[in-house]
Amino acid sequence: MTWTLSSEKLDQQNIVIDESLFALGNGYLGIRGNFEEGYPEGFKSIRGTYINAFHDITEIQYGEKLFAFPETQQKLLNVIDSQTIEIHIDGEHFSLENGEVVSFERKLHLDRGYSERIIHWKSPNQKEVKLIIRRLVSFSKKELFAIDIQIIPISMINEIKLFSTIEGDVSNYVDKNDPRLASGHAKLLSVIDVRRDENVNIVQNKTETSNLEIACISESIASVEYDCDVTVTNTGIRESLTFPGSERIQFTKLNVYVDTLRHGPAIVEAGLGVIQNARTETFEEMLEAQKQYLDRFWSNADIEIKGDEKLQEGIRFNLFQLLQSVGKDGVSNIAAKGLSGEGYEGHYFWDTEIYILPVFTMTNPQIAKKLLKYRHSILEFAKARAREMGHKQGALFPWRTISGTECSAFFPAGTAQYHISADIAYSYIQYYLVTGDLEFLKEFGAEVLFETARLWIDVGHYYEGTFRIDDVTGPDEYTCIVNNNYYTNAMAKWNLSWAAKVADMINSEQVSKEEAKEWQEAAEKMYLPYDEKVQINPQDDTFLQKAVWDFEATPKEKYPLLLHYHPLTLYRYQVLKQANTVLAHFLLEDEQTLETMKRSYDYYEKITTHDSSLSYCIYSIMAAKLGYKDKAYNYFIETARLDLDNTHGNTKDGLHMANMGGTWLAIVYGFAGMRVKENGISFAPFVPEQWQGYSFFVQYQNQKLKLELTKTDLNITLVEGDELEVTVYDEVFVVQKSAANSIKLR
Amino acid sequence: MTWTLSSEKLDQQNIVIDESLFALGNGYLGIRGNFEEGYPEGFKSIRGTYINAFHDITEIQYGEKLFAFPETQQKLLNVIDSQTIEIHIDGEHFSLENGEVVSFERKLHLDRGYSERIIHWKSPNQKEVKLIIRRLVSFSKKELFAIDIQIIPISMINEIKLFSTIEGDVSNYVDKNDPRLASGHAKLLSVIDVRRDENVNIVQNKTETSNLEIACISESIASVEYDCDVTVTNTGIRESLTFPGSERIQFTKLNVYVDTLRHGPAIVEAGLGVIQNARTETFEEMLEAQKQYLDRFWSNADIEIKGDEKLQEGIRFNLFQLLQSVGKDGVSNIAAKGLSGEGYEGHYFWDTEIYILPVFTMTNPQIAKKLLKYRHSILEFAKARAREMGHKQGALFPWRTISGTECSAFFPAGTAQYHISADIAYSYIQYYLVTGDLEFLKEFGAEVLFETARLWIDVGHYYEGTFRIDDVTGPDEYTCIVNNNYYTNAMAKWNLSWAAKVADMINSEQVSKEEAKEWQEAAEKMYLPYDEKVQINPQDDTFLQKAVWDFEATPKEKYPLLLHYHPLTLYRYQVLKQANTVLAHFLLEDEQTLETMKRSYDYYEKITTHDSSLSYCIYSIMAAKLGYKDKAYNYFIETARLDLDNTHGNTKDGLHMANMGGTWLAIVYGFAGMRVKENGISFAPFVPEQWQGYSFFVQYQNQKLKLELTKTDLNITLVEGDELEVTVYDEVFVVQKSAANSIKLR
Repeated sequence: MTWTLSSEKLDQQNIVIDESLFALGNGYLGIRGNFEEGYPEGFKSIRGTYINAFHDITEIQYGEKLFAFPETQQKLLNVIDSQTIEIHIDGEHFSLENGEVVSFERKLHLDRGYSERIIHWKSPNQKEVKLIIRRLVSFSKKELFAIDIQIIPISMINEIKLFSTIEGDVSNYVDKNDPRLASGHAKLLSVIDVRRDENVNIVQNKTETSNLEIACISESIASVEYDCDVTVTNTGIRESLTFPGSERIQFTKLNVYVDTLRHGPAIVEAGLGVIQNARTETFEEMLEAQKQYLDRFWSNADIEIKGDEKLQEGIRFNLFQLLQSVGKDGVSNIAAKGLSGEGYEGHYFWDTEIYILPVFTMTNPQIAKKLLKYRHSILEFAKARAREMGHKQGALFPWRTISGTECSAFFPAGTAQYHISADIAYSYIQYYLVTGDLEFLKEFGAEVLFETARLWIDVGHYYEGTFRIDDVTGPDEYTCIVNNNYYTNAMAKWNLSWAAKVADMINSEQVSKEEAKEWQEAAEKMYLPYDEKVQINPQDDTFLQKAVWDFEATPKEKYPLLLHYHPLTLYRYQVLKQANTVLAHFLLEDEQTLETMKRSYDYYEKITTHDSSLSYCIYSIMAAKLGYKDKAYNYFIETARLDLDNTHGNTKDGLHMANMGGTWLAIVYGFAGMRVKENGISFAPFVPEQWQGYSFFVQYQNQKLKLELTKTDLNITLVEGDELEVTVYDEVFVVQKSAANSIKLR
Repeated sequence: MTWTLSSEKLDQQNIVIDESLFALGNGYLGIRGNFEEGYPEGFKSIRGTYINAFHDITEIQYGEKLFAFPETQQKLLNVIDSQTIEIHIDGEHFSLENGEVVSFERKLHLDRGYSERIIHWKSPNQKEVKLIIRRLVSFSKKELFAIDIQIIPISMINEIKLFSTIEGDVSNYVDKNDPRLASGHAKLLSVIDVRRDENVNIVQNKTETSNLEIACISESIASVEYDCDVTVTNTGIRESLTFPGSERIQFTKLNVYVDTLRHGPAIVEAGLGVIQNARTETFEEMLEAQKQYLDRFWSNADIEIKGDEKLQEGIRFNLFQLLQSVGKDGVSNIAAKGLSGEGYEGHYFWDTEIYILPVFTMTNPQIAKKLLKYRHSILEFAKARAREMGHKQGALFPWRTISGTECSAFFPAGTAQYHISADIAYSYIQYYLVTGDLEFLKEFGAEVLFETARLWIDVGHYYEGTFRIDDVTGPDEYTCIVNNNYYTNAMAKWNLSWAAKVADMINSEQVSKEEAKEWQEAAEKMYLPYDEKVQINPQDDTFLQKAVWDFEATPKEKYPLLLHYHPLTLYRYQVLKQANTVLAHFLLEDEQTLETMKRSYDYYEKITTHDSSLSYCIYSIMAAKLGYKDKAYNYFIETARLDLDNTHGNTKDGLHMANMGGTWLAIVYGFAGMRVKENGISFAPFVPEQWQGYSFFVQYQNQKLKLELTKTDLNITLVEGDELEVTVYDEVFVVQKSAANSIKLR
């Protein structure tokens, strides 16, 4: 059953979590798993419909505003609500909170791309029905969200009524008890048009400031005849549908979402076109299209784990949710919570490049390309931001953004994380190394590499013969604004050196020989701190001189520390929120000896809280590399089921996308030890002893490999392509199509 | 004329500046120099009446709020307005913007404690009058603000009407174009009572959140009979007074301000008592009382400069404004802008202890004692804040506050300035060294010293045998959150060592022998960074490794830098907003050799912008000490006339109190080289060559010295007391009453 996520939970706490877990999406449109029939008064639900990148602009409030603090930010909007369909059985309102729920089952089909609820319900007056409620967000028609309800009478029923609404009076979620969500910016959309055109319901909204428009176009279709009353209000449309109670009813509601970001100004016309096309298909046909899409996806991306259903469920669920959340149109990216919730306001972070992009680069490079194009599309904003930040040249990418401008309101753990510019550069290089796509590198990557290299030249300076970078924040947000953060310097070095290399490779007119030489020299002279005494790479110039956090005196309930200690308190101690130097050692393993990386791992592991969900997977990968097999496995468990088990306690606000990517990385880069470098693709695999084996696919240079591991062997198959050199444990194998390659595990 | 500040300016820009310069106050009540008759439409005026420490509580907004960020702050309120008296001459409204201003003169009498405007005015209809408008804020009756208007008819006039109002509908100043002032918290007071009781007008207001109340009780008195109509509105009272136009009129308006912070709940009764008493005096008698008070003040505090009227004006004006602003009741302190404007929202900073307190300690120790008592009164808040900031013990004083809680909304240049706790400790020690008041030390100082010492023990830690302090910000706000800031460490060392000394001296039961030893040891082991190569004390662990700011490429209009560069940009370079290490060398000159201090001065001077008004005076003092006489003089000029010449461009928002104290310090500690240490009081004077000489008073150990310097000699007179040892240039003199001591200047 590892293709299906199931839940029978109906209590308050789990229902909001399940709203995230059972969210449906396609990278453009996302719908939280809310109940069509609604909730009783006082029941908390985070009702959400999101369009990736569809945002409004809100003012940022500061107690003390300094120069170049961003004045506004973007906010992903909860848009027109088409989820509601009330069901009345002989006048009794169906709800899971009244009458008797004889049975309830909820499923998310990871292989088939839809969710369903199967409910056997007895009303207070003993009317009995079976309900099958299915929904899908179409992968092939990105605008389409379809709900299908089957009502099967069991007892004698005279009349069944459905009240189906499209409501444009929507707000973002606000929780007064949670300051992270209680910003005053809840109501940003207003309704500009409501109308019914033949049988089609149209609601059109507009944002307050960003001048974006969205429309929801909806149509009801049923298997039996019904009477229909329609009420058009100022903000929405309500259809009252009356069915005979004597027979099985199948009711399908097609909801099409169109916005001015993708569909030009004539969004309603565009939407009508989509619905016209959609209504030619039955719901079953739509399901079939979903299955076909997912078959293709899984044929590239599936990971099979033999011997652990829980982890199997984790990895598949995580991959499915990544697919559901990733923007595929070049104007959107992948938000920290995908399209499953409102945490982090729909912003894009470095999570994309370092944690998520590799999954797509290796399994679905076309999607990866779209993500990279998005970053290129905001390059001009990044250049403008660099000027605003006092840099004479270069591009500084925003720490968090939707449309390209910096949205971070707290610069020490925001704008100061300059490393994001190197992270983005790194991802272009990785993409090139994996795909060999020189054209794309020329057209998009080169400019990003050059502009980020220029940033580093302007940020850094020479001191005693080494190139140094002062006053930045690395990935670890428990120590901010430091000099020579190892991660940042190492990534900047890579960025500079590749920028020089690419300038030479493509003989770019954008870069003079002198400039390329300047980059190369700064890379060569880059200062990478190393402590002779502890023999590790210190996180920054003075990190090892600080006192170590008193972990023994810190009770469990004080974690995550950031919710219980002032940033200054955290900064003062050796304590990490997440992998920092250890992450650099994963991404740039050739910078240091294995011994140094091992000592660094041992040192930092003791003082890392993993308060960030971006940490476990990296510790798992590096543990795998260093031979700490148990650690690799245990950290993997934490990443694989982080949302499924709500271990961070905030899954209700949306799923942790970076961690979901990290699960894949932990298997492929961790257990299987995959690396892609200039000299090719290599593996150094092992199988956790708790497993019988595992298998996965990767694409490399337009060819596709399947790797299957048993307790003893690695079998490599070339699924697509003709011939490929693959290094396994430093030994080179030539893998050929339809030839078995079996290698003994060490 | 150096006892009088004069102005004849009537243009828009200068009128708002003059509103600050001509502000009147007594440390309790402050009134900006607004015009009684009002301004024409569209004319900008910052109309202000302030009661020291009378505040409301407002929410601080954050884009991203982290743990222990203060949720609220206090805000000094603009209170009930009693300044307005319109004058109508035969129906024509007097204003300096209509008719003809034949002559206009405005004066602030520093020796007599009042301001006046003398106006010769011809109305559009050629009615001619002379107006003498005087006002005072009483030093002897702190609640009293009196306005006296004389109207002398020159042409034939039938009727003169005055419209005198008390208005409770008041707001704080908001300027939409200046984000530092445009907070949404303008209207925080509401009127709770308006009434007229016999001839007395009473308006009572209440704050929105802090539950403080204030009342203004006002009465009109005139030298000739008049008709009076009274209009009582919901928010104020307007008296329409009709006088014959034939004779000279003297009209006096007594306004008494009482508040629940000082007068208990029955404020109106308290105010009626004050006004009852006040009305027994004529305005001339009130002026006489002012003069007597100021005679006493100047007999202790005057500094005479021979040979430079502009600087003479500067120092006297600054001292007068300090006196007008300093809280003398133990529940208030001295705000960054005194009571002259709304900049920095009436908050108290370290400015008090390091820049202002020494002036009072040396000239008026009773006032100094009140300021120190205020700090002691908020010690419990400081202890609570230390806990909130994660410290197991000790007291962390708020960076800015009125009632004791932290009001800083930007911690890198706020809460992170831990040094304020050592600055406060330092001031208690200085007060003890100057006065020898052991009782006060026991009752108040000791506890502050012990609690701040405990803070340092908790903040710091041992590393390689030295005691270190990480992640704090020193006085220079262009480099924040650093390790081992020289200033902070040196001040903490002094704090710890004196805490141990005092514990021993008074044999305190609050401190165990072990704890005192722990303090002493931390002090002895305190790490004070010293750079072997440059042979100076670096500002912090990594300061000297950063790139030097490119001053050549920075045009004038980019200063102050903080208004044109993001903090990260500033942090990344060697560039100072204000004296930092150089200030430590002034306050703790025995920590380093003269050569080190000289090299440090030379080094830091080149990279200091003096963008803070707290910088020039310190550079003047240290220049004097190091023999840079020209520099000492030139920096002194900048401090003496900073507000008079509006050199920082924001005098309209209030006067720069710390700098005003710094003017005094620059003469007494700078030119005269005064120091007070455990072994006594000493001087190392010189006379700037631009001057003929100068003289000043200081009090030491309950005795009072007058020091008079000519081009060649220092004459010391013991004005009060019997005998005192004074060191001059390392030579000890015994100064006796009525015996002349003349010492040749070196």
